[in-house]
Amino acid sequence: MSLATIEAPSRLTTVTSLEALETPCLVLDVDRMDRNFTRLRSRLDGMGVSLRPHLKTTKSIEVARRIMNTPEGPATVSTLKEAEQFAAAGVRDMIYAVGIAPAKLARVAELRAEGVDLVVILDTVEQATAVAEASRDAGMRIPAMIEIDCDGHRSGVMPANRAQLLEIGQLLTAGADLRGVLTHAGDSYKGGGVEAQQRYAEAERLAVVEAARILREAGLPCPLVSVGSTPTAHHAKDLAGVTEVRAGVFIFFDLVMAGIGICEVDDVALSVLATVIGHQREKGWIITDGGWMSLSRDRGTGKQAVDQGYGLVCDIDGTAYRDIIVTDANQEHGIIAVRPGTDARLPDLAVGDRVRILPNHACATAAQHAVYHVVRRRSHVVEACWPRFGGW
Amino acid sequence: MSLATIEAPSRLTTVTSLEALETPCLVLDVDRMDRNFTRLRSRLDGMGVSLRPHLKTTKSIEVARRIMNTPEGPATVSTLKEAEQFAAAGVRDMIYAVGIAPAKLARVAELRAEGVDLVVILDTVEQATAVAEASRDAGMRIPAMIEIDCDGHRSGVMPANRAQLLEIGQLLTAGADLRGVLTHAGDSYKGGGVEAQQRYAEAERLAVVEAARILREAGLPCPLVSVGSTPTAHHAKDLAGVTEVRAGVFIFFDLVMAGIGICEVDDVALSVLATVIGHQREKGWIITDGGWMSLSRDRGTGKQAVDQGYGLVCDIDGTAYRDIIVTDANQEHGIIAVRPGTDARLPDLAVGDRVRILPNHACATAAQHAVYHVVRRRSHVVEACWPRFGGW
Repeated sequence: MSLATIEAPSRLTTVTSLEALETPCLVLDVDRMDRNFTRLRSRLDGMGVSLRPHLKTTKSIEVARRIMNTPEGPATVSTLKEAEQFAAAGVRDMIYAVGIAPAKLARVAELRAEGVDLVVILDTVEQATAVAEASRDAGMRIPAMIEIDCDGHRSGVMPANRAQLLEIGQLLTAGADLRGVLTHAGDSYKGGGVEAQQRYAEAERLAVVEAARILREAGLPCPLVSVGSTPTAHHAKDLAGVTEVRAGVFIFFDLVMAGIGICEVDDVALSVLATVIGHQREKGWIITDGGWMSLSRDRGTGKQAVDQGYGLVCDIDGTAYRDIIVTDANQEHGIIAVRPGTDARLPDLAVGDRVRILPNHACATAAQHAVYHVVRRRSHVVEACWPRFGGW
Repeated sequence: MSLATIEAPSRLTTVTSLEALETPCLVLDVDRMDRNFTRLRSRLDGMGVSLRPHLKTTKSIEVARRIMNTPEGPATVSTLKEAEQFAAAGVRDMIYAVGIAPAKLARVAELRAEGVDLVVILDTVEQATAVAEASRDAGMRIPAMIEIDCDGHRSGVMPANRAQLLEIGQLLTAGADLRGVLTHAGDSYKGGGVEAQQRYAEAERLAVVEAARILREAGLPCPLVSVGSTPTAHHAKDLAGVTEVRAGVFIFFDLVMAGIGICEVDDVALSVLATVIGHQREKGWIITDGGWMSLSRDRGTGKQAVDQGYGLVCDIDGTAYRDIIVTDANQEHGIIAVRPGTDARLPDLAVGDRVRILPNHACATAAQHAVYHVVRRRSHVVEACWPRFGGW
């Protein structure tokens, strides 16, 4: 399949190889990405549940088109900027999966007036009241889902809090559009193995199925019953009662996901290309131009069994060196060294040589960059430049 | 003084107050910024040393113009993207203060051909050879400074390594342009009090003065003798032999700098404006739309005496609540709570209310945003929108 270049930044128009790119920059192995996508899509197809990919990881129209069921969605977004950008690219079915701030409802109504079925989420009576008011002001019923708390991780109504659930549900039904319930097993990122993930997944399912039952028994509608996190999406054994699964980081994977066994290191599709700019040989350091500005400040593996520092170092082909990591980073400097406590040997890299660094957290690392440089597995040919956006 | 709006993003053209901004977004208190600038500038003026501000913190032309000696510089940059952006705005005297990768010398030569005195730095014979080769290819002498290691923190030649210093110096003098020596006391960020900072500053000074002596005694030129870090710039007692001081984060300051006593919390000029989107009252949590995407993943105070979480929370006026911090953050969610171990009380904030969050690390937080929303101290009026850029 050929990979269309949407919009190559002017500096990149003649670039054809990893050797010729300006560093640091972001490299996307589209073969790994496609394999990650097929893995989850096949799993969910087999369970009869729809995938609503979370586009906050990629913030890229080209990637979104490869991972949505149709060019119109469904999809999940984390900002109204994403909603607007994907709407402009033709996506019509989106959940904005961060609790709505009342002041944002005007932008939501604008997008809906343009024909985009954008759904908000909320977990308070105040927000439900604001959605009803905004619906009245805009002359439309703005759809909202009730966020359910399945693990005490962050936001959401506990399913046991029947009174709050029903009050919100009734406010939305009367003055807006109650679209369903949604939860996210944030605790699943802590890992714990297959059985723990199966428990997280089942807790996620039970929380929304119970909330949906309460709403429906009270005569309220609940068409969407939405769960999702990358770890639970890969381990749920039963999705009875669930209508859709959301997941984001599954498409690229990263060292945090590898660290909790959701993928292998070899599945990580994203890397930062960096150039060696010096050595401190007495200390066993190789210095590169890949600092935290390009890798992000994310140290998500710091609490895991294997601390990957600021990232795991690969050769330019994308093959990981054994136990060679970015042990420290400044804004535009990365320090590569042997992982403490191992007997690995530092690769023989000269000034000007290039490495690829696998990220702790794909969402955070990708966010530091404006373009994906797209390659095939083990190839050095940059087949496309896919822009990505940030902001709110 | 009026603050010109250079280029307001379309969404902001009618915005006039903090209450009306889309959140999360970046707020810059220009009164605090001006005070921070005056403090360091006056100090260095008193010592007879030039300030070469590091523009990597701000990446903003409007801020740069307020902190450089002249519209043409001098300035320091951390990427060639910065060099190109500031050159386009008229800056003519810049040091690119990250060890040069040979492949980047073509872009350096391009800028120099346009009349920009862009100086590179290096610490290896390989790089000096590459600069000499690039100079020959471009038909110009590309100036380079030798990076000196004053504290084992990162890069640089140890002043004691006289042979390497002279070999690099001779290569540059023969085939390029030896512009001087430069060091950075990275260890000063560890803090340790006034006396420790004075020692870091003196070590920084001694390292470059000694390197300059070695070069000059061998008959080599060494016009620039450059030191700099925000902590040492504020504590150096003696800068004899030094021609200029570089500093970056001093202009905004941040919680890391406050944590090591270089500034007060009240000096921090940068904050992230966020909106309350929910509560988990049983847990003592306020949920906002200010997650790590807007705050950055930087946890620089995590190792300090006072851990500020993902940031210290202020009211919309910019006055800090006592011991109220962002205890945890997801991509687009921040969790505000009382600092563990204190008796502070959570402020009474409703859904839709706004807070300002002071950052751990100004460089990292600013990098998550495309615009500074400029206010005066304690004012809610947004007087200007100053764009900032990222990338390489």
